[in-house]
Amino acid sequence: MATGTRAVAKSDPAALIHLDPESGLTLQAQIRQRLVRLVLEEGSWPAGKRIPSSRELAGQLGVSRNTVVLACQQLVSEGYLLSRERSGLYINPEVRDPEVGFAHPAGKRQRPRPGSAGIAARRGPAQAGDAAGRSSGVPEFSFVDGPFDASLYPGADWREAVRLSLGAREIQDWAANDGSADDPMLIDEIRSKILPRRGIQAQPDEILVTLGARQALSLIAALYGGAHARIAVEEPGDPEARGRFSKAGSTLVHLPVDGQGMVIDARLDSCTAVHVTPSHQVPTAVTMSMPRRRRLLQRAAQLGIAVIEDDRVPESNYLAHAHPALRSLDQEGNVVYFSSLGRVLGSWLRMGFMVAPATVIAAARELRSQSAGHPPLNNQRAVAHYLALGHYDARAKRLAQEFRRRWTALRDALNHYLHRYVVTSPSMGGTAFWIRGPEDLDAAAMVGESARRGVALEPVDRYFATGEHPANCFRMGVSAIPLEQIRPGVQKLREIFMDLGAGGSERLESSCGRWLRGDALKRTVTGATLRLETVYGDPCTIELRKDGSMVGCAGIDGEDRDTGRWWVDGDLWFRHWDRWAYGEPSAYYAVIDGSKVKLFNLDKRLVDVIGIEPPAG
Amino acid sequence: MATGTRAVAKSDPAALIHLDPESGLTLQAQIRQRLVRLVLEEGSWPAGKRIPSSRELAGQLGVSRNTVVLACQQLVSEGYLLSRERSGLYINPEVRDPEVGFAHPAGKRQRPRPGSAGIAARRGPAQAGDAAGRSSGVPEFSFVDGPFDASLYPGADWREAVRLSLGAREIQDWAANDGSADDPMLIDEIRSKILPRRGIQAQPDEILVTLGARQALSLIAALYGGAHARIAVEEPGDPEARGRFSKAGSTLVHLPVDGQGMVIDARLDSCTAVHVTPSHQVPTAVTMSMPRRRRLLQRAAQLGIAVIEDDRVPESNYLAHAHPALRSLDQEGNVVYFSSLGRVLGSWLRMGFMVAPATVIAAARELRSQSAGHPPLNNQRAVAHYLALGHYDARAKRLAQEFRRRWTALRDALNHYLHRYVVTSPSMGGTAFWIRGPEDLDAAAMVGESARRGVALEPVDRYFATGEHPANCFRMGVSAIPLEQIRPGVQKLREIFMDLGAGGSERLESSCGRWLRGDALKRTVTGATLRLETVYGDPCTIELRKDGSMVGCAGIDGEDRDTGRWWVDGDLWFRHWDRWAYGEPSAYYAVIDGSKVKLFNLDKRLVDVIGIEPPAG
Repeated sequence: MATGTRAVAKSDPAALIHLDPESGLTLQAQIRQRLVRLVLEEGSWPAGKRIPSSRELAGQLGVSRNTVVLACQQLVSEGYLLSRERSGLYINPEVRDPEVGFAHPAGKRQRPRPGSAGIAARRGPAQAGDAAGRSSGVPEFSFVDGPFDASLYPGADWREAVRLSLGAREIQDWAANDGSADDPMLIDEIRSKILPRRGIQAQPDEILVTLGARQALSLIAALYGGAHARIAVEEPGDPEARGRFSKAGSTLVHLPVDGQGMVIDARLDSCTAVHVTPSHQVPTAVTMSMPRRRRLLQRAAQLGIAVIEDDRVPESNYLAHAHPALRSLDQEGNVVYFSSLGRVLGSWLRMGFMVAPATVIAAARELRSQSAGHPPLNNQRAVAHYLALGHYDARAKRLAQEFRRRWTALRDALNHYLHRYVVTSPSMGGTAFWIRGPEDLDAAAMVGESARRGVALEPVDRYFATGEHPANCFRMGVSAIPLEQIRPGVQKLREIFMDLGAGGSERLESSCGRWLRGDALKRTVTGATLRLETVYGDPCTIELRKDGSMVGCAGIDGEDRDTGRWWVDGDLWFRHWDRWAYGEPSAYYAVIDGSKVKLFNLDKRLVDVIGIEPPAG
Repeated sequence: MATGTRAVAKSDPAALIHLDPESGLTLQAQIRQRLVRLVLEEGSWPAGKRIPSSRELAGQLGVSRNTVVLACQQLVSEGYLLSRERSGLYINPEVRDPEVGFAHPAGKRQRPRPGSAGIAARRGPAQAGDAAGRSSGVPEFSFVDGPFDASLYPGADWREAVRLSLGAREIQDWAANDGSADDPMLIDEIRSKILPRRGIQAQPDEILVTLGARQALSLIAALYGGAHARIAVEEPGDPEARGRFSKAGSTLVHLPVDGQGMVIDARLDSCTAVHVTPSHQVPTAVTMSMPRRRRLLQRAAQLGIAVIEDDRVPESNYLAHAHPALRSLDQEGNVVYFSSLGRVLGSWLRMGFMVAPATVIAAARELRSQSAGHPPLNNQRAVAHYLALGHYDARAKRLAQEFRRRWTALRDALNHYLHRYVVTSPSMGGTAFWIRGPEDLDAAAMVGESARRGVALEPVDRYFATGEHPANCFRMGVSAIPLEQIRPGVQKLREIFMDLGAGGSERLESSCGRWLRGDALKRTVTGATLRLETVYGDPCTIELRKDGSMVGCAGIDGEDRDTGRWWVDGDLWFRHWDRWAYGEPSAYYAVIDGSKVKLFNLDKRLVDVIGIEPPAG
């Protein structure tokens, strides 16, 4: 097996790479695999230290310098190594970032602070895509979360891993398999490359490879379900999980979700197990807080019940460190964890895994044998190579980077275009927002009308299992929509909101309050302070200074700031931020109504209502 | 999709191949794929007609002649095309052989006739393999059926199919999949290349791809099982199938198996479905006769119950035409058929499929979605290419050829070495024999002792579900044992039989009857006729002529004949066949006991008992 020949005298860099002429891998693949291992493992090469020159490495290994250079170039382009001009290659300290979760692609210095999006969006990289280029039947703007758009599929990296898995030796290994064992190389790679990112340590007999996370869920539902089982589930929650547990004959007990995740209360006491999505709650995307995590584990331990940690969408926290998985916090062996590899590679691969105490894994393995058997071993080996070569990490980073850009762009666009209409649930990452519209919004009608007009939103009825649920909520995600489509998609959504008249379709002429015109407008806004909340709940203030300058300050600590100019021309109030609101000027009619100012666009339709305070003193 | 660009004006050979520059396939792969299609389809190129020259084809296609020559050479080596010297390439008429089942690899003229193995084995190609070369823990001789030995794994052909499935376009196709649909290219290939071999026609919505046949069985057990279900199963029968149906809450009704397959009697009347293995009954390897097939279908139609046709081991009939599948004979839509692709490619791939009415497939698809989802789409596409390129057919033929050689070698070796001890169930193919030993044989002890001495046999207790069952039966298969190991393995098994003393361990000195010595021996055998039955139940006679020649005649119609010499030297009788008994001379002591002659080996241990008739007149 490829992992059997692992090198290395830790202290002597000269002996760090040992090539195996018997290996089925090409020299370049071997070099790449070993370098990735050295880069990721503490104690091999010190972070920040220059790695041996390509000439030295080539000499020590007895391979051509070109082979070494190619392997290193690839690692530089993927961020494992840093190149310093005229000085050589260094290990990127960030790849050993001790925090749990995917390493932050842009590095710590560039990490966005809370609320950094401010009142209005940053300048997007491009304008609306060419809608005409899309085939009919496919929505022009798809905000349905889950599927990937074509730009995110794996390519040459996956093909390389598959080629490596096709050796004659590999097929012989597989045939020796008795039908219940997984590929030991893949188990090893999951243990060493995936689980540490979630803070989880596990022995090989505590891991089972599954046909996507879906099979893991089915096996768990069969193991923990049954006529006497009472399973606590989130409400709103994942209908697939509910379905599996119900199908297994279990009674469901619905626990609500708040801004900290699943609410842990006395309803849990009667349960035999609890299913929970702590990373990004399905469907609200809320990340379970640390106190709530501790409380859940403590209570489960007292009750002696299993916690089923559904990590199909592992936490991608764009605003702070990711939280450790419940499984990594659990001292009692109560947590059964499962996740998917399809989130990085694509669901067509049907590859997931579960982590649990060895006795639970043994029972799940037996059940797996009875239903469909182990996932195809050729795919297990291909994924193992994909991990061993570091492609999985690199791709997870690229995806997280791209999703962060899209997520931020959607948040900014919602704030800019739909401030009057929506709020989102508190969320620090992931790929989807839970959105609450005006009280009188008929979200089902909204989703239908949007679909007809080329904007696909996700309805949320199916996430609710009990009694009444809000009719004004829907979901928007970014996994399937290219970055440049997000702004025009949300812009179109505002038109739909206006046309449907949700939240009232007030017009300037008939607005209640006092229409500020000309000098009255100028007098009122000069020196005033505007106060509002972003759609994601952060406070924001805007000072309209007498000299025509404008200072914006948003975020819990006011950490997101921008400056700009404002002026009055006739009956219109103009503002022009340096960065916010895409750095573009806007013009509004204004109506004062108590302590609020209503802003109308050039069509004289209401677009925003915000607080206004007169100049101090 | 690759299949979308199918050519062709049927009448104009010049237009028969259309290459698609947009295809992800290489030119050579495209040419190969199209040629295989043309070769297999009636009405494209007439069988026996010369195909256009490589120069003509190259000119018409605008590709290099070398590309065409390479593709054609491969097809010649795999038997699709025949090369006639100085005349060109022709379609091998045998590949369009209308009979169901794998085309017979050696062609009609060389097909073995019933009983062709005669009383004794043909000369094997080699002597015992080098046992020392095998690693410890692995039996020296593995007669356990099911797994393949390493020589049978796919190699370059599979890698080629995988490479073709790795295009960027393919991955985009997969991502568009909603999670319940199979790869349409694979469905198309199963319809056009696999099902016709079993006589089955099916629409795309009548086929579901499964994770090995095992998932098909699980889905079917869930669909047809339940608390009110009564499932007729074979006894002895497949424990896995029994387990799945029991697990689904069904009551099992056990129907016995005779030489024609499952016995259809009144016990079926109370059943809601019947599970049956008609191709090679598990575990007896008996092939269900045509009258029995018709009776089963007729009765199922009268009762309105489903027939679950388990074709995990499709019929490989070495002695006659294979039988059509029940599904192909069924007029009523009562048959649910399932099979495995792993029998050709290896079980590590986990690929099978089921064929049933569209409503049944829709229900199975829904169930599949709920448990594990569809088999990985990359593997579906790779298998589709493997089929499209004709590799599957070619490999199935190679395997059938190899298994026929091994099966015949095992039958011959059993007949030669274990004639005194065993009989087999009637069988015309497959890879395993059901073997019945002497009445006093303790098969469990036999299997244990054999394992200790390096010969792996399969015990059969697990195939019986009810009451008493014979203690003297076991199974031997050839899927895992190389041809040259079969004779020495069976030879070793005879030693074990002798040492265990099953059937009595008679010695020459204490034998009852009259020891024939010197002239008495010569007088008794000269002109006598020996009569016996082969271990597989065919009659056999041997005439010992006065001139020292010997004529053997075996088989139902005496169609297997051989000649040889016999002589007496002292107290030993010698015989030496031209072909039978590996063409090697043997020497025996003889004891006459009524109408039987007992033969003892040079160690004076009893090795055979056969009938003897004095010279006529």
